[in-house]
Amino acid sequence: MELSTIYQPIAEDLIKVEDKIRSVSKVDFRWLSELISYSLRGGGKGIRPAFVLLSGKFYNYNLDYLLPMATAVEVMHMATLVHDDAIDKSPLRRGRPTINELWGEDKAVLLGDYLFAKAGEFTTNTQNLRVVKLFTQTIMTISSGELNQALNAFNLEQTRQHYLQRISSKTASLFSLATESGAILGQAPQDSVVVLKEYGYNLGISFQIVDDILDFMGTQEELGKPIGSDLTQGTLTLPSIILLERYPEDNPVKRLFHNRDESENIKLAIELVRNSSIIDECYAIASDFRARACCNLNLLPDIDSRPALMELANYVVNRNR
Amino acid sequence: MELSTIYQPIAEDLIKVEDKIRSVSKVDFRWLSELISYSLRGGGKGIRPAFVLLSGKFYNYNLDYLLPMATAVEVMHMATLVHDDAIDKSPLRRGRPTINELWGEDKAVLLGDYLFAKAGEFTTNTQNLRVVKLFTQTIMTISSGELNQALNAFNLEQTRQHYLQRISSKTASLFSLATESGAILGQAPQDSVVVLKEYGYNLGISFQIVDDILDFMGTQEELGKPIGSDLTQGTLTLPSIILLERYPEDNPVKRLFHNRDESENIKLAIELVRNSSIIDECYAIASDFRARACCNLNLLPDIDSRPALMELANYVVNRNR
Repeated sequence: MELSTIYQPIAEDLIKVEDKIRSVSKVDFRWLSELISYSLRGGGKGIRPAFVLLSGKFYNYNLDYLLPMATAVEVMHMATLVHDDAIDKSPLRRGRPTINELWGEDKAVLLGDYLFAKAGEFTTNTQNLRVVKLFTQTIMTISSGELNQALNAFNLEQTRQHYLQRISSKTASLFSLATESGAILGQAPQDSVVVLKEYGYNLGISFQIVDDILDFMGTQEELGKPIGSDLTQGTLTLPSIILLERYPEDNPVKRLFHNRDESENIKLAIELVRNSSIIDECYAIASDFRARACCNLNLLPDIDSRPALMELANYVVNRNR
Repeated sequence: MELSTIYQPIAEDLIKVEDKIRSVSKVDFRWLSELISYSLRGGGKGIRPAFVLLSGKFYNYNLDYLLPMATAVEVMHMATLVHDDAIDKSPLRRGRPTINELWGEDKAVLLGDYLFAKAGEFTTNTQNLRVVKLFTQTIMTISSGELNQALNAFNLEQTRQHYLQRISSKTASLFSLATESGAILGQAPQDSVVVLKEYGYNLGISFQIVDDILDFMGTQEELGKPIGSDLTQGTLTLPSIILLERYPEDNPVKRLFHNRDESENIKLAIELVRNSSIIDECYAIASDFRARACCNLNLLPDIDSRPALMELANYVVNRNR
């Protein structure tokens, strides 16, 4: 199903979120405005704001609080991308040169700081300190997850367990912030808050596994960046961890990590993964987390948000970009 | 007067703040804990937490709210230093190797993100959304001020006015956050909040001017970093702006900015500033802002905080590190 169809129950309100996001670039300082506009133009799929709104719809759908939160999660996500690209020195994101590529890493770090804080300011407009606190804790979780990844770059001693821990910090935490805060601001009772939080968390894991599959299976055109970029950064993801499990003696990932400049080994690793059942195994794991995400949704009220969240879960696993 | 004497009215409570700051490094993730501990060990003068506590003492001194805020401003300040050093690729801070020097810029960016968020979490413990919002807006102001500085690196077309604007964003905003939030959390009436906010703001300007003087006048031992580092980064500060005003035709700063690798010109600029009345002029301006900071303090209740704030203002201008 197309995203636009899935978003039907909240389509008008997502446009309001987009307007709010665009308003972030309206600042007096011209250069800052330009940097913000540029980073906004990349445009995402709006999945995180959609989670906030869909999760906020089950009980008391109050846009006064849900709109700023939906905006906050997307702006915070943008901030993490700006910092990630600066840290990885990535030249491309979604097919366009990154902020660090065009303006330098120092500007990217400062722009990211600004966007984190702007996102924080949006959360205060929810008038809900519990949600603001969750927001700050999520940034702590994400940055410690990223730190874990950076400190483990080119470390071959990483298991599936390490991987799941890492992606739960760096990706699932933001998904669960989106659904949990949506539920809280929509005045859901605590058991429904837990159902939606768990949905976000498990689907976040699923989302990241698929992202990591696409880094092996996609095309540069689909991804908007070179394939195999995780391996280039020295990041082991599920496909490469399974590859290491299957060929423990000698394999291109080992050779790559030992002797870092061999781009030939990246090609070989990609081929080996593509021509094996590794991808199927990864998809099976992603589907398992999707199933965990959805298994309790039927405990929620039967409104249009519920099938939308189900379809969004399918979309996350089946997407090709 | 010594800082320890000035801090007398809040000495015991500052120790509680230090304990709270140290607690930040108590996290399960060992590497993160190590990075935080290292960045904490540098130790500052505790001026910002002191501002929060002293400002919070005039009416209803409630440590439940003031301690987390005092901790928040210091942790946020540390986050800005970690990011600044990463951006400037500075090898030394307070005489010790920086995080970026020891662990790399990527780790420094992520650690800074973590500390910003941790500071934000502390602010939520004030239970006061107005203060949390001020906190997020201050980070926005600081990062846009830093961005302004980065975008104007090696730009000779900067006036005193530009300089004052820049330092009011990058330094005075945090000082005024400290005094304003202290006043708000201490339940000061609005006119007293304004007096304390203005005090913080003007003293922040004064503080930064003195910092910029010390970059010309101090010794590497006193500063814990090489002197002339602002010029190395292409940052014009008040002494170099006045130097440019006085010698508009030809001078070492111009030559340095046109031909960036001439470290000889840094030495010449420092000598020229030292052997002129430029430093006196800078101190006169710093003293003027100190006077502005203090002029309305007598509108506040006559308690021990008041002379302490006066003495702190003198300390800020007279310090040599």
